[in-house]
Amino acid sequence: MNLFSSVCIVGTGLMGGSLGLALKKEGFKGAITGFDTCNKSLQKARALGAIDEESGDLKLAVEKAELLVIAVPPGQFEKVIKTSACSLQQGAVVLDLLSVKGFIGEMLKKHLPQAVDFVGGHPMAGSEQKGVEAARSDLFEGNCFFLTPFKSTGAEAMLKIQALIRSLKAKPVIINPCDHDKVVSSLSHLPQFLAYVLVKVLSEEQDIPEFAGQGFRDMTRIASGDPDLWMDIFKHNQKELLSALGRLEKELGYWKELLKKKDPKLLDLLKESQKTHTEMVKGDTEHACG
Amino acid sequence: MNLFSSVCIVGTGLMGGSLGLALKKEGFKGAITGFDTCNKSLQKARALGAIDEESGDLKLAVEKAELLVIAVPPGQFEKVIKTSACSLQQGAVVLDLLSVKGFIGEMLKKHLPQAVDFVGGHPMAGSEQKGVEAARSDLFEGNCFFLTPFKSTGAEAMLKIQALIRSLKAKPVIINPCDHDKVVSSLSHLPQFLAYVLVKVLSEEQDIPEFAGQGFRDMTRIASGDPDLWMDIFKHNQKELLSALGRLEKELGYWKELLKKKDPKLLDLLKESQKTHTEMVKGDTEHACG
Repeated sequence: MNLFSSVCIVGTGLMGGSLGLALKKEGFKGAITGFDTCNKSLQKARALGAIDEESGDLKLAVEKAELLVIAVPPGQFEKVIKTSACSLQQGAVVLDLLSVKGFIGEMLKKHLPQAVDFVGGHPMAGSEQKGVEAARSDLFEGNCFFLTPFKSTGAEAMLKIQALIRSLKAKPVIINPCDHDKVVSSLSHLPQFLAYVLVKVLSEEQDIPEFAGQGFRDMTRIASGDPDLWMDIFKHNQKELLSALGRLEKELGYWKELLKKKDPKLLDLLKESQKTHTEMVKGDTEHACG
Repeated sequence: MNLFSSVCIVGTGLMGGSLGLALKKEGFKGAITGFDTCNKSLQKARALGAIDEESGDLKLAVEKAELLVIAVPPGQFEKVIKTSACSLQQGAVVLDLLSVKGFIGEMLKKHLPQAVDFVGGHPMAGSEQKGVEAARSDLFEGNCFFLTPFKSTGAEAMLKIQALIRSLKAKPVIINPCDHDKVVSSLSHLPQFLAYVLVKVLSEEQDIPEFAGQGFRDMTRIASGDPDLWMDIFKHNQKELLSALGRLEKELGYWKELLKKKDPKLLDLLKESQKTHTEMVKGDTEHACG
């Protein structure tokens, strides 16, 4: 864990906090400085040991860091990168932990000096809880961690970040930013959107909550996720999410027609999905990114 | 647990098997006879202690029972009730464990003598696994157990079944058959249908399984449920499920339009769903049927 001697984490919430805790757990010896616009969150992060030092000045915090981690909602990214850009030291590496990547390319072109290595990062791990209180040192363990290179990303920086991710027991998966946004629109943003819609539809039935079984509880668990954060994510991955929603609507409409006709083709589709799901779950434990 | 001195369970799968195990666990002393068209399932049920005796003859099995439990898929119900009807002893009570109730009324009118007490039952508990291997003596504990009276149901039989359900530590909820089908169409059949559709949509994206996070896994867990059983349930609750799907489609379409416009109303909806969900989960632990 001598990849970087100093780290600055901007945004000490669930993700940033978990990264700090994970670095400590895996033996990172350098200083971890935290910056957050919310003072309370910053203090809690320090109290929990996710950071060593609080900073009230983003530029000063960034100056000292060999690795800058940006763990803020997509809507705050531009402000952070714009403010940090000039303060970054020579050879510093920047890693973000945002759920959307496509829009970052433009931001980098606009605000980041060419000499800075920027690596996009997205851990496929999280919690429906928010804030550093929910941070866990093992949040990333065993989970897939997307890494997206940008035009300015050097190969050496990419290797260092891969090594860092592996040291946290996560599984780095390199993917380009556009493919990333497409994959997560289906895999994460669509299910999240749907969980909110499903709760809305079900809540229109009186007395439903008290009758709920485990299936319903599992299917809507993520609907307790932070609405402001998700609105921000949905907006930043709007194009891909709309496309995923379109695919869902089309499929749903087709299946509904089959149900209307009690068409045996519906059974074939159920069987196919069940089979796919079994393979997915099987793959889930066999694959690197389980 | 002296409500009935002898029980016959028709269909010794997950539900029937769990009921047998639960009765034993709670101190039921009488004989439990099992009948199943699948001999292997019957043998396993006996080996696991869910039944005391196997029967190869439905009529003979039914004759001896003070309580007949019908735990078969909806599509097999008519055959069972038709075959059993004349063999039922005076004063016997019939309890079914089917997921759909509306169609049962017609069946009873057609096949069951008026003197027989029939109580509809639907435990809001289950598993994506199938078969008696997955049966659990505590499957019903703490869960809502719908009871639906029919025209022929006497008050005394209803009270006895309620007491039986309570003795299994489940929470009886009395509801009429039509309301039941409406509630479960939203609460159970719609999420199940959607889980299958979602897997289909996601499976069209290459490599998705290996990148899946916990949210995706939770949301699609029930897609591993038995397709034949679910096709049967969907067909038998077709009208209500179509109506629930219609409500989902409408809501989804509206939310999609808001996303297209990045309309701040979408954030209000996300917030509302998150709030509802929090209340649901809260109610879930506070209410009788948690």
